[in-house]
Amino acid sequence: MKTERQKMTDGENYEQFDEELQARRRFIRKQLKAISKIDDNAKQNELIAQLLGDCGKKLWIEDGLEFDYGYNIHIGDSFYGNYHLTLLDTCPITIGDNCYFGPDVGLYTPVHPVDPDQRKADVESGKPITIGNNCWFGGHVTVLPGVTLGENVVVGAGSVVTKSFGDNVVLVGNPARVIKTVK
Amino acid sequence: MKTERQKMTDGENYEQFDEELQARRRFIRKQLKAISKIDDNAKQNELIAQLLGDCGKKLWIEDGLEFDYGYNIHIGDSFYGNYHLTLLDTCPITIGDNCYFGPDVGLYTPVHPVDPDQRKADVESGKPITIGNNCWFGGHVTVLPGVTLGENVVVGAGSVVTKSFGDNVVLVGNPARVIKTVK
Amino acid sequence: MKTERQKMTDGENYEQFDEELQARRRFIRKQLKAISKIDDNAKQNELIAQLLGDCGKKLWIEDGLEFDYGYNIHIGDSFYGNYHLTLLDTCPITIGDNCYFGPDVGLYTPVHPVDPDQRKADVESGKPITIGNNCWFGGHVTVLPGVTLGENVVVGAGSVVTKSFGDNVVLVGNPARVIKTVK
Repeated sequence: MKTERQKMTDGENYEQFDEELQARRRFIRKQLKAISKIDDNAKQNELIAQLLGDCGKKLWIEDGLEFDYGYNIHIGDSFYGNYHLTLLDTCPITIGDNCYFGPDVGLYTPVHPVDPDQRKADVESGKPITIGNNCWFGGHVTVLPGVTLGENVVVGAGSVVTKSFGDNVVLVGNPARVIKTVK
Repeated sequence: MKTERQKMTDGENYEQFDEELQARRRFIRKQLKAISKIDDNAKQNELIAQLLGDCGKKLWIEDGLEFDYGYNIHIGDSFYGNYHLTLLDTCPITIGDNCYFGPDVGLYTPVHPVDPDQRKADVESGKPITIGNNCWFGGHVTVLPGVTLGENVVVGAGSVVTKSFGDNVVLVGNPARVIKTVK
Repeated sequence: MKTERQKMTDGENYEQFDEELQARRRFIRKQLKAISKIDDNAKQNELIAQLLGDCGKKLWIEDGLEFDYGYNIHIGDSFYGNYHLTLLDTCPITIGDNCYFGPDVGLYTPVHPVDPDQRKADVESGKPITIGNNCWFGGHVTVLPGVTLGENVVVGAGSVVTKSFGDNVVLVGNPARVIKTVK
């Protein structure tokens, strides 16, 4: 018998008002609020790292980070996230090594039904997001549920990534499309 | 004789440095700053609800909410606003029941003149925004002054809604256009 | 012999982990954190003005401002920046008189190499951004490194400005293009 947390993480319909999930969200809100009051970035990053599922060496995230659960976030070595990164981690968000994200980037895994009656019934699920090694995202980039990007991908500022792409591409636009290859 | 507040709310040119309007903006900034320091979301939402023109049952807005006046915001039952919602309420912003907004959504009612000489003269006005029941906005959605959306409208993440649409449509892109109907 | 600060400001490759640059970034983070705790906007703006390279009369910036160094930001008279303005000032950001920016605007001067091996080696540089007098940017506008805009330019909400434009134009879209002239 799966817990609601497990159903959520696995991308199945889950009960968002489950007690354990609500308690975790409340805990994370309190932790992030406390971290936001600290004016030493190195200390902030030590505390952020402890809330994540996995986190490599040399994590550096600037002010304004938001996420829901933390345990579904998996980040490799040498990650840099600029101001106001938002990671909605209903499902796993996996980020490789040496990734750099500009300001106001949002990776969103939650999915609501398009049908309004199902949506009102609070049916919620999600799809994972996976980003390969050595990716660079400009600022104001949006990544949708279910997207996988390969290695060495550059995403131009302001792009909306609606589907998956392989290695060594530069993406721009809304929706994002390949404008050139990296090598 | 209309007050500047009434002119503003009615979409007429108004004096933004009017004493009453400035005092209200200062009051709201202080209230939102105090609310932002609280680490209990339920308590935050109780206090937010008191600053709005109207607000139904079950309001839930995550951290980072910004608005200017509050009295021009009218929200129905069961609203969920994710992180960092921005509501510029020079003119009325009316949101129906059962609406869900993703992170970094902005609804902007203020209008400045396109002519630079008029703009320098601080002529300001606005146009209302109205969102029907059962709408779902993805993250990073922008809604422009004067937009009305019907019921059951889904707006894809990263979209810029520049004009009005009726019921039961899914909108995406910049500018947003209909890509399918809901039912 | 140029300092790393001078190389950075001049748009040359520079060492981002240089002690002087790191110390400045830490100093600015602490200052902005302290300013963010103040609930009097006029006092906030007095303190912000002291951190900038140049700043004219009547600066008014709402909550949520982020920048990296401050000394590379040059703003004319009567600037208004709405909530959550982000100015990445690796290279100079120069803004003329009488400019109004909507919420969630980002001006980004840093440039990373598109080649992942160079990027991993922390080679970083930038390109300046220059905005003329009397410009109005809607909310959620993104401006890329190297962009120069002339006078009286209006940029529609949600636009991504990827290249330079002259005077008296209205720009919209991703990428932004001219849709009409102002006069």
